[in-house]
Amino acid sequence: MQISILGGGGFLGRKVAARLAKDGTLGGRTVTGLTLFDMAEPPKPDGATFPVTSIAGDLVDLPEAAVPPGTDVIFHLAAVVSAAAEADYDLGRRVNLRGTDAVIDRCRALKTAPRVVFTSSVASFSGSQDKVMPDNTRQIPGNSYGAQKAAAELILADASRRGFVDAVTLRLPTVIVRPGRPNKAASSFFSAIVREPLLGLETELPVADDFAVWVCSPRRAVDWLLHAASMDTSKMGLDRSVDPPGISTTVAHLLQALDEVSPGASKLVKRVEDKAIAAIVSTWPPAFEALHSRTLGFSAHEPVIEVVRAFVEDDLAATKAERGL
Amino acid sequence: MQISILGGGGFLGRKVAARLAKDGTLGGRTVTGLTLFDMAEPPKPDGATFPVTSIAGDLVDLPEAAVPPGTDVIFHLAAVVSAAAEADYDLGRRVNLRGTDAVIDRCRALKTAPRVVFTSSVASFSGSQDKVMPDNTRQIPGNSYGAQKAAAELILADASRRGFVDAVTLRLPTVIVRPGRPNKAASSFFSAIVREPLLGLETELPVADDFAVWVCSPRRAVDWLLHAASMDTSKMGLDRSVDPPGISTTVAHLLQALDEVSPGASKLVKRVEDKAIAAIVSTWPPAFEALHSRTLGFSAHEPVIEVVRAFVEDDLAATKAERGL
Repeated sequence: MQISILGGGGFLGRKVAARLAKDGTLGGRTVTGLTLFDMAEPPKPDGATFPVTSIAGDLVDLPEAAVPPGTDVIFHLAAVVSAAAEADYDLGRRVNLRGTDAVIDRCRALKTAPRVVFTSSVASFSGSQDKVMPDNTRQIPGNSYGAQKAAAELILADASRRGFVDAVTLRLPTVIVRPGRPNKAASSFFSAIVREPLLGLETELPVADDFAVWVCSPRRAVDWLLHAASMDTSKMGLDRSVDPPGISTTVAHLLQALDEVSPGASKLVKRVEDKAIAAIVSTWPPAFEALHSRTLGFSAHEPVIEVVRAFVEDDLAATKAERGL
Repeated sequence: MQISILGGGGFLGRKVAARLAKDGTLGGRTVTGLTLFDMAEPPKPDGATFPVTSIAGDLVDLPEAAVPPGTDVIFHLAAVVSAAAEADYDLGRRVNLRGTDAVIDRCRALKTAPRVVFTSSVASFSGSQDKVMPDNTRQIPGNSYGAQKAAAELILADASRRGFVDAVTLRLPTVIVRPGRPNKAASSFFSAIVREPLLGLETELPVADDFAVWVCSPRRAVDWLLHAASMDTSKMGLDRSVDPPGISTTVAHLLQALDEVSPGASKLVKRVEDKAIAAIVSTWPPAFEALHSRTLGFSAHEPVIEVVRAFVEDDLAATKAERGL
């Protein structure tokens, strides 16, 4: 099985690559090659038993080598994230829409309809803090990132119907705890309020403690991505998008879990209201029924405390090293 | 009030232009200028009391003169229709998506957030013949035209939120009876089975007589477009799309109305199954609740018999002349 990861240098791309290197298989089939693609050459995962190629380039001008002939699965994770797409409309449109067209066009040239696993987002919905969204909720985005993702979902579903690709879109919850540094996603603080205190650093909370949010862990996100890459799509019909079974939590609950893992750590979280950030994230619905994804075999989520523990186990040491702490 | 019609040479574009020329006003304001834009120079309407400019060009490379400074309203009706977008994926994507981006970019350059009235379609939904779609139904298109229209809706709503434009999207039902000749829309036969017999010509019916369809008349479509151009959008929020109050009818009911207007005319309709056409149109839901549009002031639809009579009154003579009959 030949696999490409577009956005292979990003947080989730690296985790998927590491998991493939560790497992050596995907959905029971042996991985025979992995191509990583990003703006800068992505790092290769340790311990791979198959050849790994790393390529730098522009998604919109996608090099053929990024998706070589014989590719079975493409993880299309490359994106301009929420606050960045809000700040630069042209950049968001270019990467999030034209980039997806470029992936489709490469698959059309291959004529083999590879599986494309695409990451959309909870940010493609809008709903107030008291809403629980059923499957089949209409996407009415409150930000450009979400609008571009929802539009790309439609284009990928149509490309699947036409036989250009075999797409599965996961509308990921806010993925926490992200390793590394704060980024330009409006949701960055949801990770920072756990990560930074565990690094011994102060961090700012731009919303109220009772703010509710739909989240998943990186471990669960990777599991879902791998399932989406190997599942049977024949029962999906025209609709290629899935709301995976995340969990609904609150800032307060997250900080309580933080303190259970590292007593007193939440004292490093400072309340500093940020209306620009709050305006974006408060349009994202905090809970989904997510029944359809369960019937499609996406795994259930672990409790919030496990989200904090997973960061400590998987990413704390590497984040400390990366940031010289 | 300065108005541009993109796709001004098309069926609806010409009717909107003719209506503006007749009324001299839009939403109570005097029309001060009209610009018509299409691939070929659109014909100017008779009797306009304001200057009319007609321009030919490529929508994606939109000339500034097509939407001059001071433009208050843009009717964005230019599209590659359903069967054509299905036959030529690149062309459909280019015009239906890139073309909409070009309109947005022109409005961004103007910095005046003009009203953009955009025509989306019932083809952006899928649902079997027994479905009645409530407002807020998720769009799961069964054809590329519908997917491109649904994606463009998202992009226009986001551009409205950002203040680039002030968009209202009308998801038009199948508009019947279209004058002129059969075209490349999969829905072309819904007009042909009324128009051609009234011209004394045989025509083919590719679906069964009990096939149900969501339709509107050109008169009603023009009324809705003008209402969308002048209505108060402040209550629409993030959602700029409207399912206007069409009517649900069947082929049999339509042919009955035809015979009431022209006894025996329906004998010219020959049953010739066409699976390609049927496959497209049978994914379009035949009925909508369309409650929201009524609260927004869109006018109710007349009975089916009036749809046939309106074609006889408005378009039969011109169609005969155009086709040399």
